[in-house]
Amino acid sequence: MDYVYGPGRNHLFVPGPVNIPEPVIRAMNRNNEDYRSPAVPALTKTLLEDVKKIFKTTSGTPFLIPTTGTGAWESALTNTLSPGDRIVSFLIGQFSLLWIDQQQRLKFDVDVIESEWGQGANLDILAMKLAADRAHTIKAICIVHNETATGVTNNLSAVRNLLDEYRHPALLLVDGVSSICALDFRMDEWGVDVALTGSQKALSLPTGMGIICASPKALEASKMAKSVRVFFDWNDYLKFYKLGTYWPYTPSIQLLYGLRAALDLIFEEGLDNVIARHGRLGKATRLAVEAWGLKNCTQKEEWFSDTVTAVVVPPYIDSAEVVRRAWKRYNLSLGLGLNKVAGKVFRIGHLGNLNELQLLGCLSGVEMILKDLGCPVKLGSGVAAAAAYLQNTIPMIPSRI
Amino acid sequence: MDYVYGPGRNHLFVPGPVNIPEPVIRAMNRNNEDYRSPAVPALTKTLLEDVKKIFKTTSGTPFLIPTTGTGAWESALTNTLSPGDRIVSFLIGQFSLLWIDQQQRLKFDVDVIESEWGQGANLDILAMKLAADRAHTIKAICIVHNETATGVTNNLSAVRNLLDEYRHPALLLVDGVSSICALDFRMDEWGVDVALTGSQKALSLPTGMGIICASPKALEASKMAKSVRVFFDWNDYLKFYKLGTYWPYTPSIQLLYGLRAALDLIFEEGLDNVIARHGRLGKATRLAVEAWGLKNCTQKEEWFSDTVTAVVVPPYIDSAEVVRRAWKRYNLSLGLGLNKVAGKVFRIGHLGNLNELQLLGCLSGVEMILKDLGCPVKLGSGVAAAAAYLQNTIPMIPSRI
Amino acid sequence: MDYVYGPGRNHLFVPGPVNIPEPVIRAMNRNNEDYRSPAVPALTKTLLEDVKKIFKTTSGTPFLIPTTGTGAWESALTNTLSPGDRIVSFLIGQFSLLWIDQQQRLKFDVDVIESEWGQGANLDILAMKLAADRAHTIKAICIVHNETATGVTNNLSAVRNLLDEYRHPALLLVDGVSSICALDFRMDEWGVDVALTGSQKALSLPTGMGIICASPKALEASKMAKSVRVFFDWNDYLKFYKLGTYWPYTPSIQLLYGLRAALDLIFEEGLDNVIARHGRLGKATRLAVEAWGLKNCTQKEEWFSDTVTAVVVPPYIDSAEVVRRAWKRYNLSLGLGLNKVAGKVFRIGHLGNLNELQLLGCLSGVEMILKDLGCPVKLGSGVAAAAAYLQNTIPMIPSRI
Amino acid sequence: MDYVYGPGRNHLFVPGPVNIPEPVIRAMNRNNEDYRSPAVPALTKTLLEDVKKIFKTTSGTPFLIPTTGTGAWESALTNTLSPGDRIVSFLIGQFSLLWIDQQQRLKFDVDVIESEWGQGANLDILAMKLAADRAHTIKAICIVHNETATGVTNNLSAVRNLLDEYRHPALLLVDGVSSICALDFRMDEWGVDVALTGSQKALSLPTGMGIICASPKALEASKMAKSVRVFFDWNDYLKFYKLGTYWPYTPSIQLLYGLRAALDLIFEEGLDNVIARHGRLGKATRLAVEAWGLKNCTQKEEWFSDTVTAVVVPPYIDSAEVVRRAWKRYNLSLGLGLNKVAGKVFRIGHLGNLNELQLLGCLSGVEMILKDLGCPVKLGSGVAAAAAYLQNTIPMIPSRI
Repeated sequence: MDYVYGPGRNHLFVPGPVNIPEPVIRAMNRNNEDYRSPAVPALTKTLLEDVKKIFKTTSGTPFLIPTTGTGAWESALTNTLSPGDRIVSFLIGQFSLLWIDQQQRLKFDVDVIESEWGQGANLDILAMKLAADRAHTIKAICIVHNETATGVTNNLSAVRNLLDEYRHPALLLVDGVSSICALDFRMDEWGVDVALTGSQKALSLPTGMGIICASPKALEASKMAKSVRVFFDWNDYLKFYKLGTYWPYTPSIQLLYGLRAALDLIFEEGLDNVIARHGRLGKATRLAVEAWGLKNCTQKEEWFSDTVTAVVVPPYIDSAEVVRRAWKRYNLSLGLGLNKVAGKVFRIGHLGNLNELQLLGCLSGVEMILKDLGCPVKLGSGVAAAAAYLQNTIPMIPSRI
Repeated sequence: MDYVYGPGRNHLFVPGPVNIPEPVIRAMNRNNEDYRSPAVPALTKTLLEDVKKIFKTTSGTPFLIPTTGTGAWESALTNTLSPGDRIVSFLIGQFSLLWIDQQQRLKFDVDVIESEWGQGANLDILAMKLAADRAHTIKAICIVHNETATGVTNNLSAVRNLLDEYRHPALLLVDGVSSICALDFRMDEWGVDVALTGSQKALSLPTGMGIICASPKALEASKMAKSVRVFFDWNDYLKFYKLGTYWPYTPSIQLLYGLRAALDLIFEEGLDNVIARHGRLGKATRLAVEAWGLKNCTQKEEWFSDTVTAVVVPPYIDSAEVVRRAWKRYNLSLGLGLNKVAGKVFRIGHLGNLNELQLLGCLSGVEMILKDLGCPVKLGSGVAAAAAYLQNTIPMIPSRI
Repeated sequence: MDYVYGPGRNHLFVPGPVNIPEPVIRAMNRNNEDYRSPAVPALTKTLLEDVKKIFKTTSGTPFLIPTTGTGAWESALTNTLSPGDRIVSFLIGQFSLLWIDQQQRLKFDVDVIESEWGQGANLDILAMKLAADRAHTIKAICIVHNETATGVTNNLSAVRNLLDEYRHPALLLVDGVSSICALDFRMDEWGVDVALTGSQKALSLPTGMGIICASPKALEASKMAKSVRVFFDWNDYLKFYKLGTYWPYTPSIQLLYGLRAALDLIFEEGLDNVIARHGRLGKATRLAVEAWGLKNCTQKEEWFSDTVTAVVVPPYIDSAEVVRRAWKRYNLSLGLGLNKVAGKVFRIGHLGNLNELQLLGCLSGVEMILKDLGCPVKLGSGVAAAAAYLQNTIPMIPSRI
Repeated sequence: MDYVYGPGRNHLFVPGPVNIPEPVIRAMNRNNEDYRSPAVPALTKTLLEDVKKIFKTTSGTPFLIPTTGTGAWESALTNTLSPGDRIVSFLIGQFSLLWIDQQQRLKFDVDVIESEWGQGANLDILAMKLAADRAHTIKAICIVHNETATGVTNNLSAVRNLLDEYRHPALLLVDGVSSICALDFRMDEWGVDVALTGSQKALSLPTGMGIICASPKALEASKMAKSVRVFFDWNDYLKFYKLGTYWPYTPSIQLLYGLRAALDLIFEEGLDNVIARHGRLGKATRLAVEAWGLKNCTQKEEWFSDTVTAVVVPPYIDSAEVVRRAWKRYNLSLGLGLNKVAGKVFRIGHLGNLNELQLLGCLSGVEMILKDLGCPVKLGSGVAAAAAYLQNTIPMIPSRI
């Protein structure tokens, strides 16, 4: 059933789905269970409590919905807004584009602020719009924390500051799909109203669980929101929360135990240590790209992403060929360039349960591929640059000191 | 992480999620993969082709959506209908009730035909409605093939015959959650327009995949359907089918490989043999219930379900106590009575990857529990009745002859 | 790779290898590790400490050898005895026979005390031999605690009493392969010098670990024992115990983690509760056999085994056909009759991680098979007899109360 | 239960146990089975036939013994030789030393030919001994194909040539523990009489199976061999081979299915491609060592090993500190220097299911560690040297072309 066996491990460096740690694979290696027995609610209770920590919220209400990031988006929007509502949304890459497409199809009045791909959200225009919106017609700001297509991280704290500055009551809805559990994210501090991620990203689980967290203000808004919704309706969950049985429909038993194991590993490492590790991996990758003489798709340092790096290839190379060759010759999985940057960039995902030597193996592979394709990269140059930084910064593994 | 360990296997006899066969657990015991590599589309292609066989359709188009049965319902409705559309829906138990609730919340004009719980769909009333509907205001008939709450199987062939008799063009939407892969189901022959099931039912996988199959007529309807939908929109799938990459958003790699293994097992056994096995298990269960002197919640033989049996307990017993005791003392998981039949029935699920000795172990447990609770059941009586039937009907295991 | 797939679970009722609990399968689902890293010794230390508890010894020294029960036998003999040493050994069935064969091939002077198969060790003859052996020429008594071929449990306490009565210094070597972790076994109290079991028996692990425990007297004897040995030499282990690295050669990482999980489950249930559970399963099985009108191969109640029951079939039936049919039609694995009782008995193993409903499922299968083969067994009779006893004795599962 | 969790994969580069491929882990993720059912012999038959291919023999008889390499050694010796027999054995490192120790304890008359550690077997002395041995007092030549402690591969073909040249009938016993399935090994062509390996080496399984292959001449010798043996006696296996039940005692079901999967992967890749891959990994490692300015413990190119490289550290560094630091900081497992070379060398195992990017990740880790410890290694230098070679030699993955 493995149609495409290659010797050794697959080096999985797409920005999701990411590597699942062995203890999590183990935890999910199990038969189904009756989700109405006392065991599953007892487990669920711990999950709902603990999952709030990865959002850095104490006041939020989490929902673990059997869906993907796309479904989580829909859940965030339909529970808080009504058709026709004006929302401001930033278009900076393929995933923000897809979210905007969803917003439009869900019949919201989407006010798009577009940036060049490779740039972050244009907050100056947001400021203008907020300033102009005395009537508070803007009901929500929708922003992707980390645009996975271009490797751009937006400044959420600055968005919050603008809202506060203009005393604007718009909801702040954040796609944290490729950020939460990897980048610094502070739901309560930044006044985020809905934040969401998917299990297959930095949590390092299989796909299948959309994880959404709603602020008290968002819950309040959900009472008025007129968008039609059933499967994604938070209210069905809230009813079962009250009953203590938690699930309006059947959850994946395996993902529940997997989430338990994933959270345990994150807390054992320490969430801030996890974030610091992503910081190291991101920086090391960027140093390698620089050493190769290539450009980062991300145009300014303030937007550099610690979970994904989009590398611009020279014009005489098709970046899709980098990805194909990685897979066909080196058992390495890289991310394609999407849409506007198709053929121009390939992406190195460096998020989730990953360590430095894995990354260095990947970088050495990228060097060989670039050389395969005629790019005058000096073998070892990127690895050396990354290693020089890492060798100074990698901490001892706490459990092994 | 197993909060409630008990020695030996858990005897899982809820009507879903059901026992996962070992080869399927094995197939899913794996790391994530890049779903944009050539491997996953190659696998997906075989799945889309083979999954049609469990619907007995050649003209249908399947969708494997990362959701549950509730989401599959929503997908069936929103892709084929527009708000305000009149649909006829049968209310015969908790799951048909939940579907009707969804239909109403999705803003359809639901014409409910209600039966007493324990009875099947009232087709006489349907006939009258069809006869009266010269203007074809009825856009769809929604029917649950097998009502999991009461163990009632509806006669889909008769529904088709009525539609044909009255030359009525209404779509036929079927919830096959607890029937497909277990009961005789013939999408093409019966002219079903949308059929759906969930991975955790007779397919014997974990929860997380809604499996929907649409007839050409349903696909045609989807072009006109005005219900708002994004995550559940078939069109997004169809676009990617054409591209040959298949997935508009990230699928669960584990469920894809699991589905491959599950289908392989079903085809190895033979789908008709699988259905015959469910026939044996259902009949054996009913014989046991009869031997115990208890009543089946299902009121007539024509509605008897081969996937779930709802057993009516004597009035002096709380059926929830049967379920609690099963779990607490015998490591046996039974289904609760729901809503109108709460406290009055408990349910034995006998679907999915299950064999006769497993069922007999369950039945012997039920006998002890009933005795525990003061019900004058003769120990061994139900097992004897079931075994007398099974001993005459169990075939040799083909691979072992 | 499953050449002989049958639907549903295999009902594994051979007296070894036995069912592995899911948490143990999970614990072993892992990659290899460097056994010279600090992690493996840390784990090993806990195992060596905790494994003593299943022998009920505080003074014994355990050895976890990558071998089977046959290898564990060889380890027990060659470390404590010298070629030519006189040993007294009881022949009561196939496994004691095989051990005696090994003893003879290892060049010991084996004084065999034979009983009819179905009887226990003849302790009267032992008493005579001990009484006569004023010169202490007998160096060891070798006894199988539970003869797996006939379902006979010997009285070890009585053996110890005889040795004490005659103040005889012979070593007491005990094969506890199908007893330890299932039957009452008290190494220290009974003055057992070497006790041994295999991982695939009541510990409910895969095959591959021979578990041996040596008393201080046995360790002392090992210094003088002249039997040639290398792989099985305890001394190589003791050297590495002192170094704190524990392993003279590579252990199975998977079995080490599996043993950790298996011990954890046993301690969670409570060793005495585990033994009581085996008592229930054994008694229930014997009641069923009686209800069927069949004979237990074990001739007297004092020898009844709570881990395996050898059932004598009527003369017109070939017991091997019972076993074949069980597997071919019912996905049930029973034990064959061996050697002298081949064709005459089949065996029901009821040891390891097993609960009551699993056993009742098995018993209902046996009833059908016997009927298949023309034996006038009343269906349900054995199950009823077993259930009548079990319904009065099964305790609540402690973690679920 | 993971006492020493570190984020990301463990980089396992000890020369055994090695990385288990995911499909093999999956194949072993299973419950026990009755090994006396028809299924296990059917599986075993294919294993015994196919395992001969990894020895490149058609005339040999394989034995799959539940033991480790140490037990496989004992099996090879005791089945072919009698106490007092003169054998010639080469001492070139820790593992040949341990084998010689075993030979002596098994009471053979061991004629040791010693080389400096880092050199191969001294065949000149062997030639002299053979020349002098007109009386054929030498009964066997024992040689380690690949000395795992020093990374030295002996020339077996040359040994065979000498035996032929002197028409000497001595048996040729070969420890292939770290060579078979990784280095070129030709049992029939080289007239090897007993060859052996362990499951946890290049076969990439867990520890627990000693795999021995005996030539017809070795089987003949076993009829006369007077060494005492029971557990390791080939004759017990041969009896059961004739019966078609194959197993004199319980095998590990999991390892049997694991071996099936491991062989399937090896044959899919192609045994000669597997060997070529090891050739690439070995060469790449040596190029890195050279680029670092360090010495290979192996003194001449003719002895270079493609499965393990022992790297000599500068005198001011303790090689054990390299290993400790690898594990504590980089989640990298390297091999210690043993005995005479303790503190002086560390070892990189590059055998089993491993690919080039994994190795490059390891090499980049070694560079950082060496720098950590004050060794003036240029970061990236070894990786660059290895990559320059690999980039020219890695083939496309056949299944992905």
